[in-house]
Amino acid sequence: MERSVGKGDLSSRHLGLDLGGTNIKRALIESADGGYQDLWTDKRDTGAEGGPEVVARNMIHAAAEVLDDDVSISTVGVGVPGLFDANTGQIKLFPNLPGAWNGFPLRDRMESALGRSVWMINDARAFTLAEGLIGAGAGCHTVVCLTLGTGIGGGIMIEGRLHLGAFGVAGEIGHQTIEPDGPLCGCGNRGCMEPLTQAAALAELAGRATAEEVFEAATAGDERSLAAIQQVARYLGIGLANMVAVLGPERIIIGGGISDAGELLLGPIREAVRERVTLVPTEKIEVVVAALGSSAGALGAALAGAIKP
Amino acid sequence: MERSVGKGDLSSRHLGLDLGGTNIKRALIESADGGYQDLWTDKRDTGAEGGPEVVARNMIHAAAEVLDDDVSISTVGVGVPGLFDANTGQIKLFPNLPGAWNGFPLRDRMESALGRSVWMINDARAFTLAEGLIGAGAGCHTVVCLTLGTGIGGGIMIEGRLHLGAFGVAGEIGHQTIEPDGPLCGCGNRGCMEPLTQAAALAELAGRATAEEVFEAATAGDERSLAAIQQVARYLGIGLANMVAVLGPERIIIGGGISDAGELLLGPIREAVRERVTLVPTEKIEVVVAALGSSAGALGAALAGAIKP
Repeated sequence: MERSVGKGDLSSRHLGLDLGGTNIKRALIESADGGYQDLWTDKRDTGAEGGPEVVARNMIHAAAEVLDDDVSISTVGVGVPGLFDANTGQIKLFPNLPGAWNGFPLRDRMESALGRSVWMINDARAFTLAEGLIGAGAGCHTVVCLTLGTGIGGGIMIEGRLHLGAFGVAGEIGHQTIEPDGPLCGCGNRGCMEPLTQAAALAELAGRATAEEVFEAATAGDERSLAAIQQVARYLGIGLANMVAVLGPERIIIGGGISDAGELLLGPIREAVRERVTLVPTEKIEVVVAALGSSAGALGAALAGAIKP
Repeated sequence: MERSVGKGDLSSRHLGLDLGGTNIKRALIESADGGYQDLWTDKRDTGAEGGPEVVARNMIHAAAEVLDDDVSISTVGVGVPGLFDANTGQIKLFPNLPGAWNGFPLRDRMESALGRSVWMINDARAFTLAEGLIGAGAGCHTVVCLTLGTGIGGGIMIEGRLHLGAFGVAGEIGHQTIEPDGPLCGCGNRGCMEPLTQAAALAELAGRATAEEVFEAATAGDERSLAAIQQVARYLGIGLANMVAVLGPERIIIGGGISDAGELLLGPIREAVRERVTLVPTEKIEVVVAALGSSAGALGAALAGAIKP
């Protein structure tokens, strides 16, 4: 299996941290033979309720612990759940973390405390980088990734490179408009894929408290839950069909909490893609669940530190 | 101005033919200093009503005339108005040319008659390659192109390379689903951008015979024509906003017949993109009309022959 490699350090170890609402996940990887292998992954509490200062302290501690032990670690990558300014390293928007994050200089704080440079990346793009290079998309020409959960994240890999566009923020597949007059999205637009397909939308459609309950009820035969999944899958299918027409991927990788539903969700997505797209040979396109599990984000952050995509 | 160059022949002249419903356009370009310059362009009748055999003969004649005169021409590229099999060179679907094109071995016919290899490319992708390398998108990181006319074509350039995806057919921006239960598209899907925005849809909305008449009437202040343009621009804006969120282009290039309307159409498109996209700095994105005029397709075909994207 070839693992394409971009610019960056190829001769040592790379630490990745994935900042989530509940956990800070960590991964250490090592470059070997032009590719990468993971050495270990783990997780700890984010302490999100403490706000930016507490979270920054926890992130610094999580990194310092590892760095102090191992002088061969050459880069630190950090995946973050939202938008940041790539020039200043300041946070713009963390929609699902409490506290005043707007303008918080997370990268500066970490760099000062750790005494080394930190590479930041959006968490869905970190997921995409990991799955695209060493996960379910390894070796593919074009890969489209989608993370389904509280929000809908996305990313694109083309010939082993993460596509970030002219401004470093491309890949927002969940913010395509699917219904021009549809529900309001957290981003301010109407009818994005996100409010039509996110975990809360699925739960509401099915009259359940959580997406997990919807899948349990559907497995037990509950018709309203099955119909809700069908509707969410229809919208996911439309958004992914659009990506197939535009990008021609050979593999579509679905991750995040909701993806645990597996075939219950993937079957209708595949169907929608096949129905909608006639100009691309959809029979050759695989729609699969992510391969790297819940550590994909941390592994991708470590890869981002190494590759600087 | 840097013109990125892919694999291919860099040291001579390249002929391009653009097969259209009315005209066969030709372009001769020369590689120079790692870039390309156009030597001349012209056009002649397609003879489309004669069907595949007559059109193939006209294409061969159009190429042979030039090739016989100039031994320094090393490659021949052909832009075609539809789908083809890149392995066999057979046509799959020319939606706007009369006759039984399905399965017609256009590439073989041309290669046998001309005694040299022919590189085929979809005409909208040829347009994209030309505008992206030597036209309005030259030097840009990521470019999205859209051709507006009988159909809606598209293409994507990333860092000077045409993105064709895993199966050679990516770039079908006009076949995104914009209205899930919208009008039937020629491709078989419902609610694609194409049936919502193509020339015939605009004319019908405005109650006029052609798109040109709609723009004339709108310029004279006709309210129904203005409203029709507004509605078409809204859908174009949604489709392009989706491309902005997903691909993060720094420039969007609009070509084809309808684009002659200029600001009448571009203004509302820019507005729609700005309203719909909040996660990408849309103020930095330019929405412009194509720079190479009606020869873009032939120039792009010539570039495709040289670069083999």
